Amino acid sequence: MRKLLVFQSDFGLSDGAVAAMYGVALSVDDSLRIYDLTHEIPPFDSFEASYRLLQAVPYWPEGTVFVTVVDPGVGSTRRSCVARTESGQYIVTPDNGTLSHIRRVIGIQEVREISEEVGRRKNSELSYTFHGRDIYAYTGALLASGRIAFEQIGKAYPPDEIVMLEGMFPLREGNTITGTIETLDVRFGSLWTNISRSAFEELGIQSGDLVDVSIFNGKTRAYRSFVEFSHTFADVQIGEPLLYINSMDHVALAINQGNFARAYNIGTRDPWRIVLTPKN
Amino acid sequence: MRKLLVFQSDFGLSDGAVAAMYGVALSVDDSLRIYDLTHEIPPFDSFEASYRLLQAVPYWPEGTVFVTVVDPGVGSTRRSCVARTESGQYIVTPDNGTLSHIRRVIGIQEVREISEEVGRRKNSELSYTFHGRDIYAYTGALLASGRIAFEQIGKAYPPDEIVMLEGMFPLREGNTITGTIETLDVRFGSLWTNISRSAFEELGIQSGDLVDVSIFNGKTRAYRSFVEFSHTFADVQIGEPLLYINSMDHVALAINQGNFARAYNIGTRDPWRIVLTPKN
Amino acid sequence: MRKLLVFQSDFGLSDGAVAAMYGVALSVDDSLRIYDLTHEIPPFDSFEASYRLLQAVPYWPEGTVFVTVVDPGVGSTRRSCVARTESGQYIVTPDNGTLSHIRRVIGIQEVREISEEVGRRKNSELSYTFHGRDIYAYTGALLASGRIAFEQIGKAYPPDEIVMLEGMFPLREGNTITGTIETLDVRFGSLWTNISRSAFEELGIQSGDLVDVSIFNGKTRAYRSFVEFSHTFADVQIGEPLLYINSMDHVALAINQGNFARAYNIGTRDPWRIVLTPKN
Repeated sequence: MRKLLVFQSDFGLSDGAVAAMYGVALSVDDSLRIYDLTHEIPPFDSFEASYRLLQAVPYWPEGTVFVTVVDPGVGSTRRSCVARTESGQYIVTPDNGTLSHIRRVIGIQEVREISEEVGRRKNSELSYTFHGRDIYAYTGALLASGRIAFEQIGKAYPPDEIVMLEGMFPLREGNTITGTIETLDVRFGSLWTNISRSAFEELGIQSGDLVDVSIFNGKTRAYRSFVEFSHTFADVQIGEPLLYINSMDHVALAINQGNFARAYNIGTRDPWRIVLTPKN
Repeated sequence: MRKLLVFQSDFGLSDGAVAAMYGVALSVDDSLRIYDLTHEIPPFDSFEASYRLLQAVPYWPEGTVFVTVVDPGVGSTRRSCVARTESGQYIVTPDNGTLSHIRRVIGIQEVREISEEVGRRKNSELSYTFHGRDIYAYTGALLASGRIAFEQIGKAYPPDEIVMLEGMFPLREGNTITGTIETLDVRFGSLWTNISRSAFEELGIQSGDLVDVSIFNGKTRAYRSFVEFSHTFADVQIGEPLLYINSMDHVALAINQGNFARAYNIGTRDPWRIVLTPKN
Repeated sequence: MRKLLVFQSDFGLSDGAVAAMYGVALSVDDSLRIYDLTHEIPPFDSFEASYRLLQAVPYWPEGTVFVTVVDPGVGSTRRSCVARTESGQYIVTPDNGTLSHIRRVIGIQEVREISEEVGRRKNSELSYTFHGRDIYAYTGALLASGRIAFEQIGKAYPPDEIVMLEGMFPLREGNTITGTIETLDVRFGSLWTNISRSAFEELGIQSGDLVDVSIFNGKTRAYRSFVEFSHTFADVQIGEPLLYINSMDHVALAINQGNFARAYNIGTRDPWRIVLTPKN
């Protein structure tokens, strides 16, 4: 194990906050190898933090420690925790919803609340706390370096107590599935849904089939059409829409060489919904 | 020692300039571990460069070498130097004010002018010089890798000759202290002053005390109120202002869950001033 | 060799795509040392990708592996390749023009098409392919880690089959040379041309000589003046234009302490041209 430590935050990279976290971690163990997921999470956006973790965490080696600091409730009573994923990575985070996607798609094996005796940097109690630097980066470095074992972080609590964001799960009714649009692939305007490949395939849809697709903005229908489920963009004409399985193994909706979101003025998350039914 | 090298500049990350500096450093010693402080310093803003160094440098291990390239006077007669801080890190920089905050708060133990015989990359004299790549990154790599000792950089000069930016020090008159607003914590709109905890405590103020706070824009008073000095935001009501000690151990002014700078339209640096007097 | 791997893309750093590529590479070999060139290439801009490679690649140690993912033709028939430069670095890229500048200025020693049996991540065939993650990052990691040799990547093809962007080469007619403006040094507004120092010196121009400079926007002349060829900005008055050799060893045009591009409203690439003739 090479002591990989990966940071994510909503701090941006224009000041010294991220570098202060790096410095604290390397002061614990200067052989750590530190990388970034992103520091451009919109301020306080736990959903985005959760989604970006899903996009990256599963591709990293077992034992990699992620530290994510997007913390609208700093100073409140939310727990600080470390979770071990089913794929063997660790995530150090305020327990405020940032574990939702990983828990849904990958699974959380075990979660422990950070004990301040263990996980707070010495002499950091005097100033107004910068938890990212004084607790999360410090705890992440202790764990990644092997200075402490996962079991020493603090008390375990049941993974099903982990705070989940709303609207995580698609709803299946008969042969219709209703999901959310979790994000846009911004450069292409594709809609990325929370409907997994397996949930989609349970509807009996195969490549080449037409699917009845509706998109709602609250109660208003913003789009309806029959769309082909395709393996690749090359299977449809330029300018035609298609359903496909995206690089995160979920259903996505695009226009070949166009921009779906812009074409129909579609947004993400609440109150947007996508409804899929196989055409018979 | 693990040969840590940290870069800061005003180059941004959209072209290849920073990567060229990395390449030069790794060509000196490919076992260097290179990290970034920030490359988003506003162009030529030595004050910002100086402030961001203070935010990060003290948290890094002794022996870490920082290279900061914000250089409005490239080609002029400003000295190129390496400073050793009282906390044991090195800073490679044009001596143009970027050492001001570190010198004020942490202290500079020793400073040496870079000799071009030592610190200029071979064969870099032909093209119009890119000093960041051809002198600063190269010198930083020589030092971080142990290829040369600090004493070999060039001649020492007295640390009190280091160029200081104006307005670094708060002014104490009787029981009143006048300081500057060095930066905003932009996401929260808090005002971060140049008044250290110790200078503030010398006024005899304790947690829970009220302080008479005035903010001036030149000669115009932009704000006046009695504000509580609080340990945490939770000690005041939502929407109430508070004075507190920030994560850099200096006095800061905020509105709990609000945005102080936006609420009162407050700016930073010259000609803004903040004046604090204990209420009796 | 220290297993250096450097990424470039047009993905930006606000989502998890770059971090997923890092994770894939570190899962191949967790002792790789990964750095970034830039991820802010404008979407699909192969020219910019090509130019930024030239700015950085030659400064890195021999054996460094660059992975560049700017791929307007994903899913089309463009080749995926690995090139070995004359200076000894490797570049993993879609063969779509991104090798143009390196080929012109540094030279390509050998190029091989990536065989999907070798260079595709296992089990990545199911989802809609994210080639950056599933082929380019994976192949780059195999090569940088020494898991495979360059010869095992796939079949070699003639370097002169490498796709070249248009307008790469300046045109010499008599004692006049016509070039393009490849980019701006944005902070200074200097024009960086595709005319190399050696091509320029073949005109017999020496430091201090006046050069007849015209700039055309298509057929419209946007600027004409006699400009001094200077070693440094300090050789001309403030506000005066100068020709100089930039940090990439090519001819550039600037105003000392001014902004040339803004002063005369000059743009880059097609249809802009710069024409230089020595004044006798």
